[in-house]
Amino acid sequence: VSGDGTTGGQPLDILVDGQPAAGAGWPLDRGLHYGDGLFETMVVRGGHVRFGALHRARLAEGLRRLRIAVEEAAIWRDVDRLAAVRSAVLLKLLVTRGDALARGYAPEGREKARCVLLAYPLPPAPPSGTPVGGGVTLSIRLGENPLLAGLKHTSRLEQVLARAELVATGAAEGLLAGSSGLLVSGTIANVYARIQGQWLTPRLDRCGIAGVMRAVVLREAATTGPTITTADLPLAALADCEAIYLSNVRIGLCPLQSLDGRVLSRDPQVDALARRLERLDD
Amino acid sequence: VSGDGTTGGQPLDILVDGQPAAGAGWPLDRGLHYGDGLFETMVVRGGHVRFGALHRARLAEGLRRLRIAVEEAAIWRDVDRLAAVRSAVLLKLLVTRGDALARGYAPEGREKARCVLLAYPLPPAPPSGTPVGGGVTLSIRLGENPLLAGLKHTSRLEQVLARAELVATGAAEGLLAGSSGLLVSGTIANVYARIQGQWLTPRLDRCGIAGVMRAVVLREAATTGPTITTADLPLAALADCEAIYLSNVRIGLCPLQSLDGRVLSRDPQVDALARRLERLDD
Repeated sequence: VSGDGTTGGQPLDILVDGQPAAGAGWPLDRGLHYGDGLFETMVVRGGHVRFGALHRARLAEGLRRLRIAVEEAAIWRDVDRLAAVRSAVLLKLLVTRGDALARGYAPEGREKARCVLLAYPLPPAPPSGTPVGGGVTLSIRLGENPLLAGLKHTSRLEQVLARAELVATGAAEGLLAGSSGLLVSGTIANVYARIQGQWLTPRLDRCGIAGVMRAVVLREAATTGPTITTADLPLAALADCEAIYLSNVRIGLCPLQSLDGRVLSRDPQVDALARRLERLDD
Repeated sequence: VSGDGTTGGQPLDILVDGQPAAGAGWPLDRGLHYGDGLFETMVVRGGHVRFGALHRARLAEGLRRLRIAVEEAAIWRDVDRLAAVRSAVLLKLLVTRGDALARGYAPEGREKARCVLLAYPLPPAPPSGTPVGGGVTLSIRLGENPLLAGLKHTSRLEQVLARAELVATGAAEGLLAGSSGLLVSGTIANVYARIQGQWLTPRLDRCGIAGVMRAVVLREAATTGPTITTADLPLAALADCEAIYLSNVRIGLCPLQSLDGRVLSRDPQVDALARRLERLDD
């Protein structure tokens, strides 16, 4: 069967918006065709990537699992050089498997990965621990696939739809469950919920992104408290939750003020943890 | 929350493989960043796209569901022009939402869609109805999301992994189930199975691609027979199947010779249908 299999080699013609294009490069990129890539979103502060080692480790893990070969040291040299020049920016690093060597989904294994690095102005953000506004439960359910779970890959159409649903509500963040009904995350943040006095965060073995700030939160909480347990957390269990916090590398760790209109509490111990995160860079 | 939200506008720097790049165009494409796009794979024969109306309808449906605005008539003019020149090729049409106008998953709604059209040499293929070889059941389970089900979207990392798993087995095609255990499709074809004398094909309401050739098969079978019923088809039910056929626009409708080593039958009525498809262009 070769209906979209690894046959056909290079195209005879390439038109981009109706105009002939060169026979190589972007129009053939597998990231563009198949979402076959990975990304990292990083905060640069004082000329350095915050939590750089964790970003490197996550990208390395993604490259290993997707079998994308790339000279990682060269990528991180570019990142570090740009961070030093720009001092305080938001960096997006995108690594795709590179141009397709043949038509079809299957990688040939000798593609040359492509690396895109974008530096954005760092949007002004209140310090970690600042309430982020109200949250809602979104209706979209994320597909579950253990082979992709945890990865910050670029097949993100579900997040595009989820974020569009959220924007229409006007809420600050939306909580997402997977198709099995278990809580996964927000649209751009990981989630922690206190239920009957116990702090829980979703397992990310079927779905979701293994957030760098989530790793920091769990690491620091293991030292300072509170105990945060990773768990299968049915969306329905949030009806009983007392507090919800969100994390990502941009916002740190911040409380959600309400969920679906119900006011949530703060937690002094988590607030202290959130303030502590603000000072960490590694 | 603006951790990856719609903030930040345009980047200060763009590096591609370490080299500064222009401040617009491919590196900002949302198809590249998020798999935020759609595609069609079409066979051109005698200067015309086979089943062109069905391809147009599927793309239109995808654009509507993803809220991607594009002048479809202009796209199809380019397709028809290239088809007329090349006469017999495989065309891949890719439409992305276009360059990001702001950072983050949510579309702004006024992006300018990008259209990539690739013409490949038409790989030699035996006529519709020719056995395609042996099939295997793949271990990867596809994530299920009704909002994406049926669409030929570009967030296809699961298919990349599935196709890689298949290639490693050496089999001609691999059958895929979704996370709930129901059969979805092959890696590049839709599937029809005869179980206890009845022809069934998976419903595509949670997962899978609404294939153009599948639409043709179901339309023609409704006239000539056999009756093909769309159904929830647990993967385990294939243990009892007598015959399996696969379809896509490249291969037509073809029998799988075996599944996981078990020899499968042919079906004279489906073979006749398969031969009939070979002559159809609309």
